[in-house]
Amino acid sequence: MLRYLTAGESHGPAISAILEGLPAGVPVAAEEVNRDLKRRQGGYGRGRRMQIETDTIEIRGGVRHGKTMGGPVSLVVQNQDWKNWTDVMSIEEADGPVRRQVTRPRPGHADLAGGLKYDRRDLRDILERASARETTMRVAVGAIARSLLAEFGIHVLSHVVRIGQVDADVSGLSNEQILERAEASPVRCADGDAEQKMIGEIDRAKSLKDTIGGVFEVKVLNAPPGLGSHVQWDRKLDGRLAQAIMSIQAVKGVEIGLGFGVTRVLGSEVHDEIFYGDSRFYRETNRAGGIEGGMTEGEEIVVRGALKPIATLMRTIMSVDIETKEAFDSAKERSDVCTVPAAGVIGEAVVAFVVVDAMQEKFGGDSLEEMKRNYRGYMDQLARY
Amino acid sequence: MLRYLTAGESHGPAISAILEGLPAGVPVAAEEVNRDLKRRQGGYGRGRRMQIETDTIEIRGGVRHGKTMGGPVSLVVQNQDWKNWTDVMSIEEADGPVRRQVTRPRPGHADLAGGLKYDRRDLRDILERASARETTMRVAVGAIARSLLAEFGIHVLSHVVRIGQVDADVSGLSNEQILERAEASPVRCADGDAEQKMIGEIDRAKSLKDTIGGVFEVKVLNAPPGLGSHVQWDRKLDGRLAQAIMSIQAVKGVEIGLGFGVTRVLGSEVHDEIFYGDSRFYRETNRAGGIEGGMTEGEEIVVRGALKPIATLMRTIMSVDIETKEAFDSAKERSDVCTVPAAGVIGEAVVAFVVVDAMQEKFGGDSLEEMKRNYRGYMDQLARY
Amino acid sequence: MLRYLTAGESHGPAISAILEGLPAGVPVAAEEVNRDLKRRQGGYGRGRRMQIETDTIEIRGGVRHGKTMGGPVSLVVQNQDWKNWTDVMSIEEADGPVRRQVTRPRPGHADLAGGLKYDRRDLRDILERASARETTMRVAVGAIARSLLAEFGIHVLSHVVRIGQVDADVSGLSNEQILERAEASPVRCADGDAEQKMIGEIDRAKSLKDTIGGVFEVKVLNAPPGLGSHVQWDRKLDGRLAQAIMSIQAVKGVEIGLGFGVTRVLGSEVHDEIFYGDSRFYRETNRAGGIEGGMTEGEEIVVRGALKPIATLMRTIMSVDIETKEAFDSAKERSDVCTVPAAGVIGEAVVAFVVVDAMQEKFGGDSLEEMKRNYRGYMDQLARY
Amino acid sequence: MLRYLTAGESHGPAISAILEGLPAGVPVAAEEVNRDLKRRQGGYGRGRRMQIETDTIEIRGGVRHGKTMGGPVSLVVQNQDWKNWTDVMSIEEADGPVRRQVTRPRPGHADLAGGLKYDRRDLRDILERASARETTMRVAVGAIARSLLAEFGIHVLSHVVRIGQVDADVSGLSNEQILERAEASPVRCADGDAEQKMIGEIDRAKSLKDTIGGVFEVKVLNAPPGLGSHVQWDRKLDGRLAQAIMSIQAVKGVEIGLGFGVTRVLGSEVHDEIFYGDSRFYRETNRAGGIEGGMTEGEEIVVRGALKPIATLMRTIMSVDIETKEAFDSAKERSDVCTVPAAGVIGEAVVAFVVVDAMQEKFGGDSLEEMKRNYRGYMDQLARY
Repeated sequence: MLRYLTAGESHGPAISAILEGLPAGVPVAAEEVNRDLKRRQGGYGRGRRMQIETDTIEIRGGVRHGKTMGGPVSLVVQNQDWKNWTDVMSIEEADGPVRRQVTRPRPGHADLAGGLKYDRRDLRDILERASARETTMRVAVGAIARSLLAEFGIHVLSHVVRIGQVDADVSGLSNEQILERAEASPVRCADGDAEQKMIGEIDRAKSLKDTIGGVFEVKVLNAPPGLGSHVQWDRKLDGRLAQAIMSIQAVKGVEIGLGFGVTRVLGSEVHDEIFYGDSRFYRETNRAGGIEGGMTEGEEIVVRGALKPIATLMRTIMSVDIETKEAFDSAKERSDVCTVPAAGVIGEAVVAFVVVDAMQEKFGGDSLEEMKRNYRGYMDQLARY
Repeated sequence: MLRYLTAGESHGPAISAILEGLPAGVPVAAEEVNRDLKRRQGGYGRGRRMQIETDTIEIRGGVRHGKTMGGPVSLVVQNQDWKNWTDVMSIEEADGPVRRQVTRPRPGHADLAGGLKYDRRDLRDILERASARETTMRVAVGAIARSLLAEFGIHVLSHVVRIGQVDADVSGLSNEQILERAEASPVRCADGDAEQKMIGEIDRAKSLKDTIGGVFEVKVLNAPPGLGSHVQWDRKLDGRLAQAIMSIQAVKGVEIGLGFGVTRVLGSEVHDEIFYGDSRFYRETNRAGGIEGGMTEGEEIVVRGALKPIATLMRTIMSVDIETKEAFDSAKERSDVCTVPAAGVIGEAVVAFVVVDAMQEKFGGDSLEEMKRNYRGYMDQLARY
Repeated sequence: MLRYLTAGESHGPAISAILEGLPAGVPVAAEEVNRDLKRRQGGYGRGRRMQIETDTIEIRGGVRHGKTMGGPVSLVVQNQDWKNWTDVMSIEEADGPVRRQVTRPRPGHADLAGGLKYDRRDLRDILERASARETTMRVAVGAIARSLLAEFGIHVLSHVVRIGQVDADVSGLSNEQILERAEASPVRCADGDAEQKMIGEIDRAKSLKDTIGGVFEVKVLNAPPGLGSHVQWDRKLDGRLAQAIMSIQAVKGVEIGLGFGVTRVLGSEVHDEIFYGDSRFYRETNRAGGIEGGMTEGEEIVVRGALKPIATLMRTIMSVDIETKEAFDSAKERSDVCTVPAAGVIGEAVVAFVVVDAMQEKFGGDSLEEMKRNYRGYMDQLARY
Repeated sequence: MLRYLTAGESHGPAISAILEGLPAGVPVAAEEVNRDLKRRQGGYGRGRRMQIETDTIEIRGGVRHGKTMGGPVSLVVQNQDWKNWTDVMSIEEADGPVRRQVTRPRPGHADLAGGLKYDRRDLRDILERASARETTMRVAVGAIARSLLAEFGIHVLSHVVRIGQVDADVSGLSNEQILERAEASPVRCADGDAEQKMIGEIDRAKSLKDTIGGVFEVKVLNAPPGLGSHVQWDRKLDGRLAQAIMSIQAVKGVEIGLGFGVTRVLGSEVHDEIFYGDSRFYRETNRAGGIEGGMTEGEEIVVRGALKPIATLMRTIMSVDIETKEAFDSAKERSDVCTVPAAGVIGEAVVAFVVVDAMQEKFGGDSLEEMKRNYRGYMDQLARY
């Protein structure tokens, strides 16, 4: 059982996570985590905050001399802006009135639903936690999960396949090419033509004081067959991946393989024929996105998430003040325009976590060596199957 | 905490479920469960098995004089065909060779991945459990969840919104109309024009010895705001709904509200403005599908699942025998052509379960009366907010 | 993750369980389960019901040709007395008044607390589920867990070490002797002298129209070191064992190794010195009961449970009718006098479950062969440590 | 669902916890937490470390202006000694050889079992996490749980009832007296005579260069009836309490109410008769320790834990070096002699957590007000029962 909890508010002192259940001996390097934190902060279409604040991980437990010890890993990212918020976000009871209270819920955010649920009259209590700031820690957790996967030759990548009306076409590109191009692209898109049009979409949205969403795709390369299970609803890997992706702030859709595309074509165009060669079963197509019956089947795992446009707009969008019950325009002066590139990085992280969780279910192992030994035993078993 | 486990194989003696965590005093009637079991068996495009075998629930525990007692509810559906399978599916070790062993994995099924994972050489050990037969019990569990929801005036409905190339248009229809028309439709579609075309799609697929998928939509009416939470990734209701839907056999995509549609339009067309009147906050649009920040916000919950065409085809689709490693054509003589209508019924069930689970988290309550009292208290709180 | 749910009432149609998470290929035989069910029903000091009703397991899913398939195992025991209770325990709503309603809570039972919690006015709704009848299914689940453990040479035994004022002395006896003698003893006690005195204690209690409790001890032989973990409170094996034992009806105390005895002596008499030989670390004492730091350390696991006397007495014990609020004497005409011997059998079952759960965490494995291969790899690792 | 994870090593930079699932609006004050941290560090018989290092809580998330916001609470205690351990416990890979490696497992500790399990050759990787230092965070978590309980008039106290051969006698003392005297006592014992003898026991052990254990008792006052449940093994409150207590480092036994004492007397002396008055059911005895059928029944919850003597001795106790396989004497020059008083404080904390968890299951509630409203509704229901 792998598990993690995150904590912290957007303008509080820090955000943090505890990740629990990794074997001992997994190499963990702060620079690897920081690399992903930085990737999360990038992308064309981001506003100012992302540029001023470079997140840096502090590992505060669970890692010694560069390796996990088997216990929980404690991760912290300080909020550099905290010094300006110590009174608004004061932990202790304050004497005077609280500044910067929020009584105006923004459409498309957790503000109102959270205010109602938790019975808060200062919606800051909600929005500080609901903010996508929290995904920083999911990326940190995912970076460590990726370190483990790398030991098994399993890699996770993502790229942007749609922004607004523009779809990328990566047919004919190898995964290496997709990875290289996406990493070099300001919109994390591997299709050069589409990239330019996507930037155009973002600029157009910005000029309209509007925002724009899109679709990111996450791929897991080299995952073994047999992760997840068909035997009970909550063991199915596709369900667990769907939960992980849908739980990312602003995601409204998830699909695996052809996804919604399976509904437009006939069965003979959907199912992947099975072949055998070099002591393994394989497919020449991968419409299933690597998962059949709730289990990996040995091909690449392909998952996509649909991200809604940022809910903070610079143009009129009406709402109601919870105190006065009067209507107001919730438009803000500035906002990110598009966060799809960053969402892909978050997608990688949550997918990596789910895959490691499923690996550990299947292979057990309290040390990396033990896990590897069990893994090799299984791979040999498959070769003899 | 609400939870359930299902058990049983497609051709075993019975399938069963234990549902745990309901309050005492919830009315449970076998006929309500049977009604949903029957709805699951229907739909244009089904093969013979569905028609001969009418599932009937046996409640074997947890219910007394028509009401839950607070303990686990035990549910069983006998497999009427079991008498023909007692040797093939024998619980006890058999003397002679086992008949009807399966060494030929079907593309699009759990057969091969499961065989590899569990190291089975008779793939029947996998397919008997991976079969959508298992969803019978999910529907039974969901029917009981619906009985609870009905006590709170919360209702769950589904209808088919796409089969193949045909999309339904239900704009302008009330939920009552959608419900009524979908229930009366052989494809569970509320749009009469689309219904005819969908039937055409199914007939076309059948004539090509092929199969066809589609999209079902599940709606939850009258759910209170504040179910689920933004505070931790695995508490978010959208993530939990996504897992539930994606875990249904053959589902490859899930979306909430506009879903993937959010990626084609600008933010100003995505977010729902907030209004106030009659002592409540409301929206005039519902692109969010009732969920913001991982919580219900008081509007209808709208979730859709994309179902792939049935993997059993009547036309050539190649695979490899696991013993001989020789290629074979996995085509079958007969098969269902389309199961999208049934999938909607399963979708209702799994969504109902998730909603009850979230209700219980929020309202607690060990008796229906206690849960209702807590619910009323919260609704009063909202009215005063 | 291994898990199970049980369902069913004492006088309902049946009791059942679903056990989930076992690897495929585990041998399961009804006679093995029945053997333990029978052991649970035995013991000197039991009343009539146990003698008339021999429990017989029905395996209804998850097992094929004598082996698990990787999916959930469905277990049922019919209540043979159900035919006499069909109206009292009717699933359906009855027309007339319900017979045999219970408004008189018995001290020492769940009756009153459950009635208050679940707001039931017929306490039968509580007592039917709270009854130790439910442990039948825990024993069935445990019997299957034991089948798995036996494949690893791990065995679980129990014996009675106290009834009333009489303590058994098994010092000098081997586990084989303890097992053999306990199994042959009417009170499941391996010390012949104590056995006779224990029978005397039971007879004395009976003559006083009273009841009597005692202590059972469960031992796990040959468990590998490293099950459980020190890294987080809920991973500790001692905690998990304590929960399992304390959750048995009527248990009021749990101890491991010296248990409460550790408080009477000095540290030098408590901690087990460590030795090395034959490529393994070992102890010559086992005051720790096989667990240090929340993990097995390679010696026998030794857990004890303290069972209170049966709460149903044949002599005056006062209570209050929930309807009339009048005092009444809750004495019954007949009752079991002592169930300590049976409790040991239940103890074996719940301990076996916890150990298999911890085995699977550590070794993973979806087939018995895979789990064994991983186990052997670990044992080799230990030998080289 | 309430949950927490702790992280951090004894000589690492800090220890931390994330506590998740509390309602919004719960008052949280650092001084309350610090008060319990300090209580954990006290007690006659402690060594030097406890005296030099005063733990101070840092709340880093989840609390704003003195109240919870509904999200996870992040808690940190810095290890003041970290500055002396930065190279030994370095997070990053070090260049040269690692100082202070541990290859000599101490009997009675997790060292060897953990080293074997996690395949560590520097046992510091194990002992740093297995250390009772970790309980600091459990106490912090418990302090917050207590703040919530206090809002419902529920209080948790502990006192020491045995050290070595000395048993306290608190019969005739009110809970107020027990609390007051235990808090004022260097051994946290409410019986003045016993206190002196306990100090004598500790001194005696110390003079023998040995250590000594004992029994602490935790009481929960004013918990409502109906927490926990009889319906499934893992819902029973007694089992959950037993796990919580047994998971405390060095605890080897747990008992509730009379505990093991139930085995020495007859049933008529064990079960608590039921009375009625002032619109409630009550008992005049409380041998059950407040729990029947896995549920609270309205009387005080009484749980005891048996703590073994500290495993670090100042006199000869043999072990084996894992590298050389040579025997060595694991005696240390200095050590705590007795930690029973501190263990009681930890016991309070883990019990408080379990009770809040059960409260939230029963009452739900996302704000303190909602939880209280639901609670009042239930208490009214009970008064009318």
